[in-house]
Parts: sequence; structure tokens; C-alpha cells
Amino acid sequence: MYRKEIKVMDCTVRDGGLMNKWQFSDEFVRAVYKACLEAGIDYMEIGYKSSESAFSRDEVGPWKFCDDKDLRRVIGDNNTPLKISAMADIGRIDPQDIPPAKDSVIDMIRVACYSHQVDKAVALAEYCIDQGYETCINLMAVSKVNEMDLDQALEDIGKCRVPTVYIVDSFGSMYSENIQHLVQKYRKAFPDKTLGIHAHNNMQMAMANTVTAIIEDVNMLDATLLGMGRGAGNCPVEILIAFLKNPKYRLLPLIDVIQEHIHPLQKDIKWGYHIPYLITGALNEHPRSALKWMDSEQGEDFVAFMKSMHDYELLE
Amino acid sequence: MYRKEIKVMDCTVRDGGLMNKWQFSDEFVRAVYKACLEAGIDYMEIGYKSSESAFSRDEVGPWKFCDDKDLRRVIGDNNTPLKISAMADIGRIDPQDIPPAKDSVIDMIRVACYSHQVDKAVALAEYCIDQGYETCINLMAVSKVNEMDLDQALEDIGKCRVPTVYIVDSFGSMYSENIQHLVQKYRKAFPDKTLGIHAHNNMQMAMANTVTAIIEDVNMLDATLLGMGRGAGNCPVEILIAFLKNPKYRLLPLIDVIQEHIHPLQKDIKWGYHIPYLITGALNEHPRSALKWMDSEQGEDFVAFMKSMHDYELLE
Repeated sequence: MYRKEIKVMDCTVRDGGLMNKWQFSDEFVRAVYKACLEAGIDYMEIGYKSSESAFSRDEVGPWKFCDDKDLRRVIGDNNTPLKISAMADIGRIDPQDIPPAKDSVIDMIRVACYSHQVDKAVALAEYCIDQGYETCINLMAVSKVNEMDLDQALEDIGKCRVPTVYIVDSFGSMYSENIQHLVQKYRKAFPDKTLGIHAHNNMQMAMANTVTAIIEDVNMLDATLLGMGRGAGNCPVEILIAFLKNPKYRLLPLIDVIQEHIHPLQKDIKWGYHIPYLITGALNEHPRSALKWMDSEQGEDFVAFMKSMHDYELLE
Repeated sequence: MYRKEIKVMDCTVRDGGLMNKWQFSDEFVRAVYKACLEAGIDYMEIGYKSSESAFSRDEVGPWKFCDDKDLRRVIGDNNTPLKISAMADIGRIDPQDIPPAKDSVIDMIRVACYSHQVDKAVALAEYCIDQGYETCINLMAVSKVNEMDLDQALEDIGKCRVPTVYIVDSFGSMYSENIQHLVQKYRKAFPDKTLGIHAHNNMQMAMANTVTAIIEDVNMLDATLLGMGRGAGNCPVEILIAFLKNPKYRLLPLIDVIQEHIHPLQKDIKWGYHIPYLITGALNEHPRSALKWMDSEQGEDFVAFMKSMHDYELLE
């Protein structure tokens, strides 16, 4: 599946950090960085860009802020082909806390928003462009957005300079035909923009949906090591790289960092396919109730979880 | 995805038994049976039909033989809508050990064969038809078969009375486009036969490949509880049932038996997505080397396993 426009973004630290409040050791983040570099991955999303006033450092690790001091301590000035990305959530970052790109190790800022926040996302993304960053917009939770609202959101995004827009399956509730439909819709709305895909694995569709997106000409591909990400996690980057068979990528460094750093984390952090995540995915719901359940004493009582869901009769 | 012709076959005991030599307790098998019955599953494959001379009962459990005495002890005479299937491997069963269907609890015998064994498979399947069984042929490991050999095998199968033929992704090495290609090829070879799909999850494609097969008009769907099966396992039946949204199926009994009987087994039996299985799948190899590795002391040294594979440079 060689197509030179394809770029892979490893989101292990950013999306995986949702499972441990970004409490990764410097050694861990450095190991992921080195693996991405050696594997020829195009972008590494190293965390969220947030204002210090939005979260407490007592609760969350440094990768929730992506302060340049922390970044440089771990990856130096990153004079490498691997680009560094940080995600910005609307309302969690004050634009004045975003330094000019020339002063930062960060190359790209990805603005994540819900459809009703598109105006704010466009404004923030335009600001980041003016600051010298690569940008994109990740429009989240579209599986819950009605057609008219989605059309309006796409129209607003279509008018801005942001060159890349992501199809995001936030709840892991999409099958390949949903992905196909959305890619074609986004393509029509943005004939000149690059499209990206960010999938979740609640119904074990993340890899397949990413392949479907590739076939539909999506060129920015999000993935994580061993699928580490919120809840059921993401498209596993090692499966994606094995699929792409692109000479610019190497699989072995990814297998190595999985063995040494990611797989051991699975003993304590329960991402991946588990029944509560299947249930929220199949019901097209945010995984938060499943995450809370998995963390509780009754985490393995899947039947009780299913019955606790408001609309579970839809599945029963 | 309602289509009345669709039938689901739970293969948990048969394919899952490859991971523990079919050493399941009667209680376990009865619980799976009851769950399938309550969930409205169409067929339960309860094991292999083998001759006693082919294996020792000291090594393998009763579900390697599917003797009617063992079956009736656990599921009685099965006067229910749930049909019972057993798989027969060429060379492991003497036809004289297959009783007439009227004397057996077994409803269906599925003959599994490699492409070079098709003549024997056809003969055995025809014999089973004469004994009164439903039958089908599962042509294994087709990802390793060249076009001329496959065409010959399909031609031979096309001439026999067997009403159902399975597309089998034995090594979990197929993407959806491979499934689509094979379904269309089999459909052309067998315009009047029912087609089935049996997928493995080495590259997390089992569920997606099953959905692709459904879209291509495949009506017999193999799946297992929590994907329990050899190596990376199968399409998880609970995800498939949630997808089908067919009023004849119920999800809750499956979630219940997973919670009580299947999920606890995961502590000791390592089926599911693991890096060694990814590597054999991506290399289109039998999982036996990965199974052996996972069982060894160096099971978590994924890099060494990758380097031990003959053609690993293809992936490196």
C-alpha cells in the first residue's frame, strides 16, 4: 500500500495519557520518541498543549501541558525528521500560552473540538497558523451529530486556512461503511484539504476503519503503540506499519519499544478491547461510564454494567 | 443488518479448545451451550469428531472426539432449535466411527481440509450426507494456495453435493479486500451453495472481515466468545451479535457467560491479539511458531521472536 502522501502520527503519549493522567516517566516518553524516530514515523503527538491554569500539576503529568522546558529535557531540540505534535482542547488553552513556533519544539498543533465549538476551533487554529505552526482540526464525536449541524460545521471549517481535517470516531461506534460515508462527505466539503483518520477500537474496527480510510484517500493516519489509548484504545501502529509495507517505515523499533515499555504497562492500565467498552461503542456513547466501571470494584461484572446503561435494551 | 438467511455458529469449544487441548469442564461446555441457546445462536460447534485411535484421552479432552456419550452427558438430547456441529479433520476420523445422524446429537459435520485433500474431503462429506448430516467444507489456509491449485480445488468441490463452503483465513493474514476477492471467486464457483466465513484476528481484522463477508452475501458466520480460539483467536461473537441487530439474537446471555466462564480463562490461556501472532499473520504463516514462543520462558521477548522468523526482513 505505497502512497507517498501517507503520514503516520503516533499518539501513544497523548491518547494513552488519558488512561494515566499523563504520568509517564521521562524515560518512557524518550523511548517512544526514539522508537518513532527509528521507525520512520512522521509525527509524534506528545501530549496536550494546555494552560497551567486549566489543570494542576499535582494531578496530571507534564504531557498535559507540553511546556517547552519539559519537551527539551526529554527530546532536546529535536533536530530530526520526526515532527512533534500537541493537541489543544478548546477552553483549556489560552492563546497567549502558545509561543511562536520558532521558539518551540512543537511543529504541529491539532485543535480538537466538538461541532458546536467549530468557530472557536477555527479561531484558535488560525492563530496557531499565524504563530507559525502546522495545524489541523479534529472534529470529535461526529457519530452523535445530526446532518444539518455537521454540514454547518464542515462549511465553517471549509472557509478557514487549516489544511488538514480529521475524521474522528471518538466512541469507537463506526463500521467501515460509516467511515466511507464520512470521508466522502468531508472530501466534498474540503476538496483541497488533507484528510486524517483517528479511530477507536471498541468494536475491534480501528485497524479496519483506518484501512478503509486509506482506500478512500485519507493520508494522515493516527495510531498508537499496542493500541494504547482511552478505553478500547486506537488503531495499533505496529499493525498499521506492517500493513503499509512502505520502505520509509520500520517495524522492529516499534516491536522493541512495545516489549520494553508498552506491554509492561498493560499489567496496570486496562486499555484495549474489554466488554464495557464494546457496550458503550455499540450504543454510540462516550466511554466515560465504561472507564469508571472498569476502575471500580465491580469492574468485571459486565452484565451489571450493561444493565446500568440507559438504552441497553437496544442491544439486549 | 437484518437478513433472515444469516446463521451464526459459535465455535468457542472447538477453536478455543485448540488452546487447552479441549480440557474444558462439563460445567463450562454446558454454560456455553445454554448461553448460545438463550442468545438464539443457530449452531454451536462443540468440538472435533475424531476417532479414538487418532488421539489419546490422556492428552486431550472429550471435545476432541465428540462421542455421543459425552455429548448427552452435557447437553442431553438437545431437543432445541440450537444445532450442534462437530468438525472433522481429514485423516483423523475413520468414517465407520461416524454413527448415523439419527443416532447422534450432532446435526452438522464440517469437513476441514487443505486444498490438496479436497478429494478426500468431498468423499467424507458425501459419506456424512448419506449418514443424514448437514455438512460443509472448510477449505483451510487458502492464503498459501496458488491460483491454479485453488481453482482446481473449487472445481472439485463444485461438483459435490455439499451445500455450504467456508472461506477460511487460517493465518489471520487477510485484509477485507482479500475476503471480498475470495467471496466473489467462491460465489462464481458455487452459484448455488451457501458461503461461510471463518476469520482469525492476528491483525485485528476478524470482525471487519466478517462484516465484509456479510456485505458480500456470505450467510454462515463463525465466531467465538471473547474471540477465544487458536492464537489471536476469532471474530468475537458478542461484537458480531451487537452488529447484526437481528431480533432473533440476544446479547445479554453472551455477556453473562463471558463474565462467568470465558473472561476468567484469560488469566491462564493467552489467546487474542499478541505481538507474535501479529508477526505470523503479517508474514502469512501458520501460527504454530508463535504459539510455541508464547508458551516458552521467552514468551515476552517479541523482538527475538520476530528475528527468529525466516522471512522477518519482509517486515523489518
